[in-house]
Amino acid sequence: MDRSRLESFSDGVFAVAITLLALNLAIEGPGHGSLVHQLGHHWPAFVAYVVSFFTIGVIWVNHHALVANIAIVDRTLLFLNLLLLAIVVAIPFVTSTMAAYLTAGGQDAHVAMALYAGTFEAMGLGFTAVFEWTLREDARLQRPVPASARWAVRARFYIGQVPYLLAIGVAFISAPVALVITALVAVYYVFERTPGRRPVPADADRPGRTPV
Amino acid sequence: MDRSRLESFSDGVFAVAITLLALNLAIEGPGHGSLVHQLGHHWPAFVAYVVSFFTIGVIWVNHHALVANIAIVDRTLLFLNLLLLAIVVAIPFVTSTMAAYLTAGGQDAHVAMALYAGTFEAMGLGFTAVFEWTLREDARLQRPVPASARWAVRARFYIGQVPYLLAIGVAFISAPVALVITALVAVYYVFERTPGRRPVPADADRPGRTPV
Amino acid sequence: MDRSRLESFSDGVFAVAITLLALNLAIEGPGHGSLVHQLGHHWPAFVAYVVSFFTIGVIWVNHHALVANIAIVDRTLLFLNLLLLAIVVAIPFVTSTMAAYLTAGGQDAHVAMALYAGTFEAMGLGFTAVFEWTLREDARLQRPVPASARWAVRARFYIGQVPYLLAIGVAFISAPVALVITALVAVYYVFERTPGRRPVPADADRPGRTPV
Amino acid sequence: MDRSRLESFSDGVFAVAITLLALNLAIEGPGHGSLVHQLGHHWPAFVAYVVSFFTIGVIWVNHHALVANIAIVDRTLLFLNLLLLAIVVAIPFVTSTMAAYLTAGGQDAHVAMALYAGTFEAMGLGFTAVFEWTLREDARLQRPVPASARWAVRARFYIGQVPYLLAIGVAFISAPVALVITALVAVYYVFERTPGRRPVPADADRPGRTPV
Repeated sequence: MDRSRLESFSDGVFAVAITLLALNLAIEGPGHGSLVHQLGHHWPAFVAYVVSFFTIGVIWVNHHALVANIAIVDRTLLFLNLLLLAIVVAIPFVTSTMAAYLTAGGQDAHVAMALYAGTFEAMGLGFTAVFEWTLREDARLQRPVPASARWAVRARFYIGQVPYLLAIGVAFISAPVALVITALVAVYYVFERTPGRRPVPADADRPGRTPV
Repeated sequence: MDRSRLESFSDGVFAVAITLLALNLAIEGPGHGSLVHQLGHHWPAFVAYVVSFFTIGVIWVNHHALVANIAIVDRTLLFLNLLLLAIVVAIPFVTSTMAAYLTAGGQDAHVAMALYAGTFEAMGLGFTAVFEWTLREDARLQRPVPASARWAVRARFYIGQVPYLLAIGVAFISAPVALVITALVAVYYVFERTPGRRPVPADADRPGRTPV
Repeated sequence: MDRSRLESFSDGVFAVAITLLALNLAIEGPGHGSLVHQLGHHWPAFVAYVVSFFTIGVIWVNHHALVANIAIVDRTLLFLNLLLLAIVVAIPFVTSTMAAYLTAGGQDAHVAMALYAGTFEAMGLGFTAVFEWTLREDARLQRPVPASARWAVRARFYIGQVPYLLAIGVAFISAPVALVITALVAVYYVFERTPGRRPVPADADRPGRTPV
Repeated sequence: MDRSRLESFSDGVFAVAITLLALNLAIEGPGHGSLVHQLGHHWPAFVAYVVSFFTIGVIWVNHHALVANIAIVDRTLLFLNLLLLAIVVAIPFVTSTMAAYLTAGGQDAHVAMALYAGTFEAMGLGFTAVFEWTLREDARLQRPVPASARWAVRARFYIGQVPYLLAIGVAFISAPVALVITALVAVYYVFERTPGRRPVPADADRPGRTPV
């Protein structure tokens, strides 16, 4: 398989998963109090929508950057990528669960938020697995990471896991604070640049390179 | 990342969002009065479906025209595009809410319609943000807009926001009239041409250009 | 816009619409009688799923054949295509409505089936609108239909509408018989060949042609 | 039609179907016992999600490998492919049904599991139909399977059906054991290689070849 079909399937899954987030935007409808009150009552659903949307958006952007650099597509990569997607696809579920319990208080709010942050952590680990695969053999990347730079790149990846681990812990103290942490991670990545990613002319594809 | 993956992900999100609109087409089913009566009772859902479908369709067409002209894809563009998509994905929710409250009367109908028109306005602003990004540096467009023409192009974009702002205001006087305004905007754009868009031979792609 | 993005967006919409059909495959679940009984009770949902799936599949195949031959993509074509897609996207709704009422008997069963067949007829008309656009100017097709052959091709298209019109009429006499007619149309097209479609080598794309 | 549009539509359907699996991940929400208890109570939904996700993932990977080798796209292939997709799209339904009944015990659990394994078996047969089409004429594959190797390849395909047939039978004795069998099939294929598939450089596309 060439890289383009891996990308097009992944793009499809990311696109559907990110759009299904909107199914959690729901109100009871007429006969359940004023609309303004209902919208206000469901504020966790709207906040959760925004945080999850941009978190999936960030992983999509990083997925692009990583996959665009891949030179070899083998079965191991396909299944590591499937593992990552299986976690991404579960995000709408943990998002709606977290939103439903955020203001419920008690143990349930803690568990729902830990499940939410834990799924983001799992997504980070899934992404790391794909990334580690690319480091194992130079031939797997078009522009391989030099051996001397590998540990620096790795460190950056593993340090990137810390905030979600922190959020899991904080979830058991205060669910809203843990939500703020996950939101800040998304904000950070929106304004930060991934190593190895530089803006490329949209038309820079060399003849013979898979263009999609 | 090359432009093609930006387009394919955006296309996926547009396609899913536009299709999820149809989930709002629903009736109670057997045992809730005659089918004809149920269909008649739900007329706002059908009108809302058509207006939202073509509104998303118009923004998709314009998105294509704009992105096809982009020469550089950087992280800022990716996230401005994500912001636009986050608003588009919320349209099925505000569509079903508006349809549910349109005939409810009172304050709720006004709020639901203002939320609907407001989301379209936000979509317009999100699109404008992507557009403004393209104007900042000549290198960002394949065929840059000449400095002398920029303000004329900008004026056209900002004037294009007026009808939705108007609809938000009118929503608090008459929700159905505001709905007619949003419908007329879609009709206008279906029959109008965007600046910079001309029909191109489908096979005009130069060798070496990203073909998708 | 080049043809490829029209195709990729259309493919996305077709793919989501055809998959949403499966949401109509639902049973009440534990506590509502034996599973075998529930599955048997919902037979119209399963039949409707198969008929709608292959009907959308046929229109997708024909859409491909037509669009692959298009040489110019203009705004008119984009909106005619959107009109066609707006009808396709409504098919899951009319499918579930038809399935819910097929065995209800009475006027409701007739109306639900007429709505179903009428939506297929509307889809046929939407497809015909796109097709008529391609006939208006020779430059719009890569291999234009010769003037002498146009009426024969047109006749074939318009005769193709007859079975659905018939099904709409028959729906008011017998909903199941009308369902059989719509099923036979799908079967016919699966085994029939469209004019102008011939199998092409998958690798036959000339350099410089839009490959997707 | 060229192969790429067949792939892009199929990818879309696979992507939506695999993502809709997540709609089965649902809990009752606040007021129905503790969240931990609800999550524990729904364990079959989570197990079923993982098994179905990777089963669809495996068929997607194999579909890629097979289609990438196809040289001719004709109408027969398109409809055999549609048949396969019609079965894949039904998987979210049989998955949720199986998960709902797995712990219900009695005849319903057996039927639900047989339906689940039977759908996987049908998917295998649908895939085999596409595969058989490729064997009928040498011109249909870019690298045709030599006549001498055909029966070996076929045997491998038909032996691959055995575990699902076994699972259908075992379903009537023990639904959980049958679930384990279907899970083992997915695990097997994740770690096994398909004949004819070898890792190819992602950039190996020859000029003039359909790149997507």
